[in-house]
Amino acid sequence: MANLLIIGAGGVSRVATVKAAQNKDTFTKITLASRTKSKCDEIAKFIKERLNVDIQTAEINADDTEAVVNLIKKTGAEILLNVALPYQNLTLMDACIKTKIHYIDTANYEHPDTPKFEYKLQWEKDDEFKKSGILGLLGSGFDPGVTNVFCAYASQYLFDEIHYIDILDCNAGDHGYAFATNFNPEINLREVSANGRYWKKTANSSSDRVTNWDSDEWVETKPMEIGFKWDYPEIGVKDTYLLYHEELESLSKNIKGLKQIRFFMTFGESYLTHMKCLENVGMLRVDEVEHNGVKIVPIQFLKTLLPDPASLGARTKGKTNIGCVIRGLKDGKEKQIYIYNVCDHEECYAETGAQGVSYTTGVPAMIGSKLVAKGIWSGKGVFNMEEFDAKPFMDELMTQGLAWKIIEMKPGESYKVGEI
Amino acid sequence: MANLLIIGAGGVSRVATVKAAQNKDTFTKITLASRTKSKCDEIAKFIKERLNVDIQTAEINADDTEAVVNLIKKTGAEILLNVALPYQNLTLMDACIKTKIHYIDTANYEHPDTPKFEYKLQWEKDDEFKKSGILGLLGSGFDPGVTNVFCAYASQYLFDEIHYIDILDCNAGDHGYAFATNFNPEINLREVSANGRYWKKTANSSSDRVTNWDSDEWVETKPMEIGFKWDYPEIGVKDTYLLYHEELESLSKNIKGLKQIRFFMTFGESYLTHMKCLENVGMLRVDEVEHNGVKIVPIQFLKTLLPDPASLGARTKGKTNIGCVIRGLKDGKEKQIYIYNVCDHEECYAETGAQGVSYTTGVPAMIGSKLVAKGIWSGKGVFNMEEFDAKPFMDELMTQGLAWKIIEMKPGESYKVGEI
Repeated sequence: MANLLIIGAGGVSRVATVKAAQNKDTFTKITLASRTKSKCDEIAKFIKERLNVDIQTAEINADDTEAVVNLIKKTGAEILLNVALPYQNLTLMDACIKTKIHYIDTANYEHPDTPKFEYKLQWEKDDEFKKSGILGLLGSGFDPGVTNVFCAYASQYLFDEIHYIDILDCNAGDHGYAFATNFNPEINLREVSANGRYWKKTANSSSDRVTNWDSDEWVETKPMEIGFKWDYPEIGVKDTYLLYHEELESLSKNIKGLKQIRFFMTFGESYLTHMKCLENVGMLRVDEVEHNGVKIVPIQFLKTLLPDPASLGARTKGKTNIGCVIRGLKDGKEKQIYIYNVCDHEECYAETGAQGVSYTTGVPAMIGSKLVAKGIWSGKGVFNMEEFDAKPFMDELMTQGLAWKIIEMKPGESYKVGEI
Repeated sequence: MANLLIIGAGGVSRVATVKAAQNKDTFTKITLASRTKSKCDEIAKFIKERLNVDIQTAEINADDTEAVVNLIKKTGAEILLNVALPYQNLTLMDACIKTKIHYIDTANYEHPDTPKFEYKLQWEKDDEFKKSGILGLLGSGFDPGVTNVFCAYASQYLFDEIHYIDILDCNAGDHGYAFATNFNPEINLREVSANGRYWKKTANSSSDRVTNWDSDEWVETKPMEIGFKWDYPEIGVKDTYLLYHEELESLSKNIKGLKQIRFFMTFGESYLTHMKCLENVGMLRVDEVEHNGVKIVPIQFLKTLLPDPASLGARTKGKTNIGCVIRGLKDGKEKQIYIYNVCDHEECYAETGAQGVSYTTGVPAMIGSKLVAKGIWSGKGVFNMEEFDAKPFMDELMTQGLAWKIIEMKPGESYKVGEI
């Protein structure tokens, strides 16, 4: 049915490719390309052994639009799934415009030097996508991605009006190390040390696609300022903090009638203590330090010392729980639900060779590609997840490894069980 | 009266030299020598400006016995005060034997590669010192040093028998940094991560100068295993942990009738947390790590990142309290005292340009030299502090900046106010 080109060869790409191979009725041809072809070959070998499906592999510099155009032409791809770095979203979107094929990614474009999470530059490509007659699906991971679909499903099927959304992301995985990071420690640091931000409706709120970050509808908080102990279903109580996360930008525009939306993530006390101590001694510095005549960037040296994030998958135990607490009106009455997925790190690793953090992002990337491939989600232009009918995506989640549950709560009820 | 040669140009040396210059009736000529002559010149300049006393300076490699011999001959020194590294005790003792001049130091010899604190190699020079007709005074700092003198004073003047000694070393100085170390972090780490050890009398105890560390009289404890909150006079409650410290070796032999002696030091919770976190990420490793093609020893890179210990003096506020709780018998009755000195970091810095940790070591180093210079402490061979009459040293402490106090306690009374 569709010829899929996947760019990137990290953990998320591994999961998306394995899952695409499991859906070979939809994806009749799959090409996996990245800067390091050997990584693609290793994934292809894994898939051949496990599923007896053949995957093509190629070397590609995703920063080079022309090279991507040539690869698309050579493979005959109809859909490009971008699970490379978010730095490369724009060049890959341009390659899709030039070749008139559909584009899907899992995370906001970021400039490598001045990271700022916003959809502006990707939304600005809407006209070009329309003119090319293609669809761009932005943020088809878990959060953003499934969290947007949870909200859309609630909005379309369960509520007449939604007023409050809290997205809660808990990773209770334990890799057995006193300290290690799932990503580059620089990105982890940014999460912990950045100011938080959430959205609430004010007289100035508008649904323009150009976001005015200085508007009073965006409330800024100090790093880790808002936090509490939350009792996650099937996991238990975890320290949880308010952060900014990119789905707030699109959901605050697309969920009509919304009064407030916030995002929370768990950080263990020990993790935060380590980050603080490392910051105190200067190990999180990103500038060069002269040491015995050599210039060393402390955070890069820290990365050298820490366990390779790729090695964590094989030893991570425990679960993730990511979901949304949604409150609003149904048939004139107050209603509140908790809709979430629980994912087990060891089960993910057994199936795909990657742990839960990659799995929860890679599976929705494949599902988004599948719905586009089958024309179930269709349109011309650049879209966020919640702009489509949520039902077919919710159905796919149930059968592709990310089953979800809904708890009916009392309106105003909270699983917050204490302060930090 | 005496011609003094001081080796070393760190904080302790600075204090000892300033104090020697304040006692110019005793020290008619003072030469300050170290590997880096400019450091000596800076101290000499400070002393000239403050006290209008002239100090000679010289460059010396303290590892080179012959060079030291030549310097002693050239200066005509009669006493050598070693406040260089403890690695150099043996070569400097040999230079004193060859030139027949008295030797004084403040800390146990250590081998740079296999640090082990014991007096064995220094005590073995006793015969050669006797033959040369010279005196070697070992450990004339604060602890060891003043703590030994406190015990000797109690033994000689206040008690008929001493049964229990607890030495308690509290540094409540605050340099205003979240984390910094007073010494090389490698030495700080060793203190925190080494097993503790204390002495108690058993049937196997003997007063032989060769210590049998495997004897059951030495009780080994895990790092930080024994700890409590202690209410230090004039400071307050601080977390305090049992460590091994070198004065236990000589005091357990020289204080007759002793049943138990232990040593305790304060470590703040934040300090220990930082050390633990740094250890967890590998930053305290002493082996080489390959980073971007360069070999880096993590703990050395940490030292580069941390504030220079020499820069802490000017900004350290607060006090030290080092003392001994001594329990025994007097006139057939139980008796217990707390004998201690309190030292103020800022006052030390104002007087000498070095903070309290250097001051409390440098002042006793000068006093030991002074008592030897004046012949008040005399003898042939190698001695520890407690082998002399404590009274003249106690009198000097009162007038040289380290006044002491005695609190009469109820026998069995404790200033322990809680567990950690």
